[in-house]
Amino acid sequence: MNIVEIIEKKRDKKALTKAEINYFVKEYTKGNIPDYQASALLMAIYLNGLNKDEIYELTISMKNSGKTMNFSRQDLIFADKHSTGGVGDKTTFLVLPLVSCCGIFMPKLSGRGLGFTGGTADKIESVPGFRANLDFGEFENLLYKNGAVLATQTNNLTPADKKIYALRDVTGTVSSLPLIASSIMSKKLAINSNIICLDIKCGSGAFMKTFKEAEELANLMIEIGNSANRKMCAVISDMSQPLGNAVGNSLEVYEALSALKTGKPYDLIKLSKTIAELILKKAGIENAGEIVLEKLRNGEAYQKLCDIISSQGGDMDAVLSRDFKRAKFQKVIYSKQKGYIESINCELIGKASLYLGAGRMKLGDEIDHKAGIYLYKKVGDFADVDDKLFELYTSSEERLIEAEKMALKAYKFSSKMPEKRDVILKIIE
Amino acid sequence: MNIVEIIEKKRDKKALTKAEINYFVKEYTKGNIPDYQASALLMAIYLNGLNKDEIYELTISMKNSGKTMNFSRQDLIFADKHSTGGVGDKTTFLVLPLVSCCGIFMPKLSGRGLGFTGGTADKIESVPGFRANLDFGEFENLLYKNGAVLATQTNNLTPADKKIYALRDVTGTVSSLPLIASSIMSKKLAINSNIICLDIKCGSGAFMKTFKEAEELANLMIEIGNSANRKMCAVISDMSQPLGNAVGNSLEVYEALSALKTGKPYDLIKLSKTIAELILKKAGIENAGEIVLEKLRNGEAYQKLCDIISSQGGDMDAVLSRDFKRAKFQKVIYSKQKGYIESINCELIGKASLYLGAGRMKLGDEIDHKAGIYLYKKVGDFADVDDKLFELYTSSEERLIEAEKMALKAYKFSSKMPEKRDVILKIIE
Repeated sequence: MNIVEIIEKKRDKKALTKAEINYFVKEYTKGNIPDYQASALLMAIYLNGLNKDEIYELTISMKNSGKTMNFSRQDLIFADKHSTGGVGDKTTFLVLPLVSCCGIFMPKLSGRGLGFTGGTADKIESVPGFRANLDFGEFENLLYKNGAVLATQTNNLTPADKKIYALRDVTGTVSSLPLIASSIMSKKLAINSNIICLDIKCGSGAFMKTFKEAEELANLMIEIGNSANRKMCAVISDMSQPLGNAVGNSLEVYEALSALKTGKPYDLIKLSKTIAELILKKAGIENAGEIVLEKLRNGEAYQKLCDIISSQGGDMDAVLSRDFKRAKFQKVIYSKQKGYIESINCELIGKASLYLGAGRMKLGDEIDHKAGIYLYKKVGDFADVDDKLFELYTSSEERLIEAEKMALKAYKFSSKMPEKRDVILKIIE
Repeated sequence: MNIVEIIEKKRDKKALTKAEINYFVKEYTKGNIPDYQASALLMAIYLNGLNKDEIYELTISMKNSGKTMNFSRQDLIFADKHSTGGVGDKTTFLVLPLVSCCGIFMPKLSGRGLGFTGGTADKIESVPGFRANLDFGEFENLLYKNGAVLATQTNNLTPADKKIYALRDVTGTVSSLPLIASSIMSKKLAINSNIICLDIKCGSGAFMKTFKEAEELANLMIEIGNSANRKMCAVISDMSQPLGNAVGNSLEVYEALSALKTGKPYDLIKLSKTIAELILKKAGIENAGEIVLEKLRNGEAYQKLCDIISSQGGDMDAVLSRDFKRAKFQKVIYSKQKGYIESINCELIGKASLYLGAGRMKLGDEIDHKAGIYLYKKVGDFADVDDKLFELYTSSEERLIEAEKMALKAYKFSSKMPEKRDVILKIIE
């Protein structure tokens, strides 16, 4: 097999065979195909696409490039969730306890954030003592003990995806649906769960800016999952404004706990309940909706999250103390005008939070866990002059001025009450 | 400026600015842009194209990446020719003397062959003692002395083109008209000649398989040349069968000398005369056609080629000796059938000749100067059973069997006389 011929084939809009895709993934991962040939092929794929068979084969090849995670107990039902990433997305912290309270096991590997969207692994590490870096034995023990476990992605899963993603990142080939779908699904399939629920974010704070794209991506991934004998479900959820009110690391962990206790904010609860319910339904549990509601109301889900955190070394006393979400510098920004919040540019809020220290501008940057933004007003709310609009949290006082400008720019006011957009745009069961 | 943004722009079918193209060419040549980003951009260019301004800027940027060749005498007219390469193409050996006999100077840099098309530099080096590797002082002296000089391409001209071409060669991005046109023209413009005549080959033995492509390439290059204030002309010539009867190195040099003496074979003479005439016309010489014919008939052109060869150290006695075109092993292949030659697959003849030793399979291979194929029958000729069809020349006896098969496969017979295709398909003045 010859890589130049494979490149030429895709360049000429021909479909690649399973053997050709396998050859590329295997030899590129081994270092036998140089980056410059891989990037030419990736650009040809970006521009000429992949058909469904090719996408599936690429996914499976990448999945098979490293170890896969197989659980010793075959009698249990394992479920996974994946979010395509957004601003203020802390649903994992709610879905894990809600689902595992009902006897379905959730082995969850989470990524770190880069750019304006945060990573769940970074967020949970704001909890003093929490250990997200687990070996497989520990991971499995905690999973059986609590019904859920939350860890960082290990290096021996899908090395091909890691190498290809790093190359895509510097060659303008990230935003390709077939490449995104196969990248995500290779990682999901490397974990042998029975059910996968996808949360495809859509809007100004997401990679998918339009509903059409989000739906296409969801369907692509569902097809891959179904072909690999997984039970698949998905929600397309709104990311035209941040999810919930908190954006940051400690701030989001706190909001998640608080939400499990209080049932608020509405959008975060609604989305988390929907995902949990979809997973339970796929697991064959009847009255899933009612059960989820019950686990929320009776405090079981809240207690479960506390247990998960504690079991992984997290100091719950610290989390519940006043200091946990107190930053060195905080500044409340008040509204200078009167009106309804018509929209909040989600990417701008994400970038302001990143600038305050909540994320990484580039790989290897240190995260300021206390940095972030708390939104007092969201889309549809009415703000009077001098009402609290949002609050900035940071360890770098000098960053407040610029971050305030960025976040203020994100807010658009209107004299009329805007139509409320529900957080759930579509459910695919 | 940021290379990823440049890649994304071209990926999204947007036109690149002069500054962006310059940045890419300059920084890539310097090694500041890695191959994997350059190849992604080249694939995006391959698939999304370049507009005329972009092609021009790319050409000029590549031209300016190294030294340019400026002649000390400003009072003379300098002309250049370029062939896109084919099988049996020895027109340079005829055009140089024909044109320089008429007072127009031809400083000619020629490439080496790779694959099934031969390189003029390799061919002329079959002449014992011939020196094609000249420094600029020597090059210019010989040019003024003889009116023409034939040398290998020097390394300090268009380094950007060399680096980009080498990358295209291994990333499936060779066969792009904008990239071919800018590559050729950057090299042509680096030599400060006044007139450029392009010989665009078209057919089974050429890079351009169809007339449409060949015409498009010709027009693209003419536009670039005109924008750079060069007088441009072009022929689109047939390469559906080898040019002339000889394919190889010594064999072709011998055929060129013989053609200047005898006025045969027809196709080689016709094409060479046409190119010479076009150049002379562009130089403002009246009755160019008649003059060229006269220089051919009175032996001046023949004597001029002998002088050019001798002046560059070539041993004309050796060329005219019986040994020059005698190979260690020769085998005449006779026709096993009766009929008209309907077609000769040019690429197959080229590959058979390459296999016999006349070319390089890969860079750095040694060439067997005596290897090649002499075609006794060409398209339209009638062959009786046991008529000589072609003759194989080689130093490797064991290669004769396979080469015979390949060359025989190239010949298609017909009971009807096929329509003759003229060697000149189009002239663009």
